[in-house]
Amino acid sequence: MVKVALDALGGDFAPDVVIEGAVNAVNKNENLHVVLCGPEAEVKAKLEKLGYTGKGISVVDAPDPVAMDEHPVEVLKKKPHSGLVTCVALQKKGMVDASVSAGNSGAMMASCLMLLGRTTDKFSRPPIGCVIPTADRPIILVDAGANVDERAATLVDFAIAGSAFAETYFGYENPKVGLLNMGEEEHKGPAVLQEAHQLLKAAPVNFIGNIEGETLIEGVADVVVTSGFTGNVVLKMLEGFYELHKKMFGVIDTPNGRRFDEMWDYRMTGGALLLGLNGTGIIAHGRSDALAIEKAVEVAAKYAEKGVSKNVNERLLAIKDDSSEAK
Amino acid sequence: MVKVALDALGGDFAPDVVIEGAVNAVNKNENLHVVLCGPEAEVKAKLEKLGYTGKGISVVDAPDPVAMDEHPVEVLKKKPHSGLVTCVALQKKGMVDASVSAGNSGAMMASCLMLLGRTTDKFSRPPIGCVIPTADRPIILVDAGANVDERAATLVDFAIAGSAFAETYFGYENPKVGLLNMGEEEHKGPAVLQEAHQLLKAAPVNFIGNIEGETLIEGVADVVVTSGFTGNVVLKMLEGFYELHKKMFGVIDTPNGRRFDEMWDYRMTGGALLLGLNGTGIIAHGRSDALAIEKAVEVAAKYAEKGVSKNVNERLLAIKDDSSEAK
Repeated sequence: MVKVALDALGGDFAPDVVIEGAVNAVNKNENLHVVLCGPEAEVKAKLEKLGYTGKGISVVDAPDPVAMDEHPVEVLKKKPHSGLVTCVALQKKGMVDASVSAGNSGAMMASCLMLLGRTTDKFSRPPIGCVIPTADRPIILVDAGANVDERAATLVDFAIAGSAFAETYFGYENPKVGLLNMGEEEHKGPAVLQEAHQLLKAAPVNFIGNIEGETLIEGVADVVVTSGFTGNVVLKMLEGFYELHKKMFGVIDTPNGRRFDEMWDYRMTGGALLLGLNGTGIIAHGRSDALAIEKAVEVAAKYAEKGVSKNVNERLLAIKDDSSEAK
Repeated sequence: MVKVALDALGGDFAPDVVIEGAVNAVNKNENLHVVLCGPEAEVKAKLEKLGYTGKGISVVDAPDPVAMDEHPVEVLKKKPHSGLVTCVALQKKGMVDASVSAGNSGAMMASCLMLLGRTTDKFSRPPIGCVIPTADRPIILVDAGANVDERAATLVDFAIAGSAFAETYFGYENPKVGLLNMGEEEHKGPAVLQEAHQLLKAAPVNFIGNIEGETLIEGVADVVVTSGFTGNVVLKMLEGFYELHKKMFGVIDTPNGRRFDEMWDYRMTGGALLLGLNGTGIIAHGRSDALAIEKAVEVAAKYAEKGVSKNVNERLLAIKDDSSEAK
């Protein structure tokens, strides 16, 4: 049995879609238990309305709402009884295996960082590892938007964490790591990327060199390493493409159409994993609907079952500080 | 009559597709004259083979080939009789209105910079202004890949140049300028973007704030301002998405399908304009086929006719140095 704590009030369409997503997830997965953290009476009433049978879901009372723009540290201090903080606190106490919120992502990150703790002080903030689609297969993007203005050595740590993620989750052997840049040649791009390119050549990853926006989409790499800033732009462009396609062409009912929907519909990805934490913290999309929440819960359970965070942490800790921190 | 000089040996499939593109362009545009710069005998033989009638095309002998990886400054020094350098030199002499090459883009940029000269010393390299598709209409991206590690003030100058481009070329009134970032809030993103955000609020452009990868594709801005590094990633992702779509779904023969092809097929854009130069220098795609070359020549003629470079330069020169250069 895998237990996933879910912030019932997190997300633009909470709590309705969150509760619906949780019910769908447990109905489809016998081995899954969801702990809904939110205002108990409200959550239970909605569960009843959805015909919830009492199997696979429990509720922990956490009545405080968290606004999307509330300051992360303030949330931690003043809202210990929010669904967001509670779902992380339950993991800290060993009562669940993973925590998911589609709410205030900065607050979720801060809660995971402060309550679960970081494995390494290499990252100022836990980088976001995100499954993204390509023309060929899903791959891992690190960092999808937690950090900015990273040093070259930090990008190397992203590569190590991303490799362990791709290996553990997808089973990709010796995953190919590409550095997102503006040209294939090693002397191309911003100074920090030129430096990172040299460091990556010596790093314990299967570095295949620089990749570009087009080869990223083609799927030449299994892991794309980039600054949180660029990673966020990439992630949101991928979402934008999908939305554009959907708007212009609707559902295309061919094998390729179904494959495109399955891989490019970002609701199917469910949520992104915070890397370098002593635990499994998942940030789901703020605009999540019931399907996205269902997938986020499923993915959280898989991350926990496969020990993705544990493997990422072992890999990060195995590096001697002087090799990756050297400037 | 607009005269466009074209590097006959520039591009992965030169000279065949270049010459074919030139013939198609002049056949479709009575008001256009193309000066093909390349090895005279070879070019003339190919023109004859294509049934060229003697109208609209002249040939200037420029026999030196330029390799794609040749050092830009070396090309200028050692290959004055290349098609690339010759097509820029002709513009310097006032014999043509615009110069186009699909060859070594670094060498094209260096040739334009050294021979035509820069209007302003604000840019270390002339930023690339590129027409890109959105869900709604074509917009301008600056910089699409010439510069790296820009200061905040340089991004402001990109905004000014891009605004003049969008206004002059598309006729967009008071074009909306968005700064590509990882969040809408002004305190989000890398330090240089936070600083640029503040400078843009005071700049003589219609600044609408930060935009993100998804809103870029939706088309909320008429001009997207970003570092040459990110701009290059964005541009290549747009190309990658088009290729993916084409590969998965082929030609979709509906009004939306035709509209998508017209706007998203990057061959239709033809070429990108170097901004801040005393002249019209166009970099076409290295992989250009005949259609892409035809469009590049047409677009070059339009840029020259509409005085895009002239308007961009006037706008750049109108800013007091202390306003945009202030740190």
